[in-house]
Amino acid sequence: MKILLTNDDGIYAPGLHALYEIFRPYCEVHVVAPVLEMSAVGHAITLSSPLRVQKVDRNGSFYGYAVSGTPADCVKIAVKELLNPGPDIIVSGINAGRNVGMDILYSGTVSAATEGAFLGYPAIAVSLDCRVDPDFSLAAKVAKEVVEFVRKWGLSDGSALNVNVPALPASKIKGVRFARQGTARFEERFERRSDPRGNIYYWLCGETTVDDGDTDCDSALLKAGYITITPIHYDLTCLKELGRLNGLEPPKLPT
Amino acid sequence: MKILLTNDDGIYAPGLHALYEIFRPYCEVHVVAPVLEMSAVGHAITLSSPLRVQKVDRNGSFYGYAVSGTPADCVKIAVKELLNPGPDIIVSGINAGRNVGMDILYSGTVSAATEGAFLGYPAIAVSLDCRVDPDFSLAAKVAKEVVEFVRKWGLSDGSALNVNVPALPASKIKGVRFARQGTARFEERFERRSDPRGNIYYWLCGETTVDDGDTDCDSALLKAGYITITPIHYDLTCLKELGRLNGLEPPKLPT
Repeated sequence: MKILLTNDDGIYAPGLHALYEIFRPYCEVHVVAPVLEMSAVGHAITLSSPLRVQKVDRNGSFYGYAVSGTPADCVKIAVKELLNPGPDIIVSGINAGRNVGMDILYSGTVSAATEGAFLGYPAIAVSLDCRVDPDFSLAAKVAKEVVEFVRKWGLSDGSALNVNVPALPASKIKGVRFARQGTARFEERFERRSDPRGNIYYWLCGETTVDDGDTDCDSALLKAGYITITPIHYDLTCLKELGRLNGLEPPKLPT
Repeated sequence: MKILLTNDDGIYAPGLHALYEIFRPYCEVHVVAPVLEMSAVGHAITLSSPLRVQKVDRNGSFYGYAVSGTPADCVKIAVKELLNPGPDIIVSGINAGRNVGMDILYSGTVSAATEGAFLGYPAIAVSLDCRVDPDFSLAAKVAKEVVEFVRKWGLSDGSALNVNVPALPASKIKGVRFARQGTARFEERFERRSDPRGNIYYWLCGETTVDDGDTDCDSALLKAGYITITPIHYDLTCLKELGRLNGLEPPKLPT
């Protein structure tokens, strides 16, 4: 099995290396990841500047390609240029920090998987619900199990899996659940500061989480101690709203 | 009516100015837009550097705020910091180039509207199907009609409207249609070049468009001469795939 690994924390991130170590014994592993940390870049791609690709060694042997772009760029250039033929599956992560609810709109980790699905490859994104001193060993094993699941059952065209793992020992994890994306989000504000030259600047801060009321969505199940797997796709059409609009007179055509 | 205008082509873009001119006679217009062109940034937000905000004049009078960030950043900082209370509606655009099918994943214009919806505001994105020497006058009138439509009928919570206007005179436009997002996309490749120092770099190129087979989706209707309006939301769950997965044994919990 030929596997493409990428992430948004950059090619030197330990979460990516944990995937590399778990898949290397039984897969042909290819690493194509951003040279720099690219958190919260969403589905950005690089159009106004060219991409540079560098070979990266680790412990003296070839490890992968570092790309001067975003996670979505990495998937595109891996599939279109660096790997030929393309991979059997794409795994993005392991992200240090959960990607549930509204987070996934901003997540480079998840967008890499969506990009993979869009290009026609089975793809999964894996995130660990821990930002400080994360231990990726269990999440890497989960990634392996999910890859085996996808190899066995396939994925419907255009869908990818967004996997979140609680920061708990295996014995404390309650199980594995398929779940819809909820609407959990950070309550955001901007912190206004003055630089040493008296100029104002702003930091985006998001401190408390506003949770989804639904106990069956990704954030609630993750919090309750489950590994969650959410099938996502790139069709943003709100079908319910489309149905309502179709019952109304459309806006007038200007003259 | 208090209206927030933003875009991804930057605060000096003529498409934004066309919106400003059409809404100014009857609205309280606020412009908060990226200082630089931010095409294809998708739903990126700025976390690892602070945001700077500059006042921008046009013809000697205050025009709006230029933000050193992405379209989603602009919406967040406008709503959370610069405008108080928030706007009645958010309009993003007018983009020079259509945003249909898979384009909308990468589109900063559309992401600004999605961000608005996410923050609880009615929001629309407007794009004109013309990249070279666009004439925004008709598309600006369309934006005004769609805003009036939204003021009259509202939008369901969490949804935004993605509006695309053909580059045709009003007399040639066939009508206004609500449509789902299709899967039209560019057939992409990378062009490999060598710089004057002999180093390799790559440009992402997307030349021909692979159209959706469905004649009722956004790209097909736009091509056929209709103004299209697609309700979009930020729930990426693929419900169909979730249904299928729920019928399967989930991956094993590693020990």
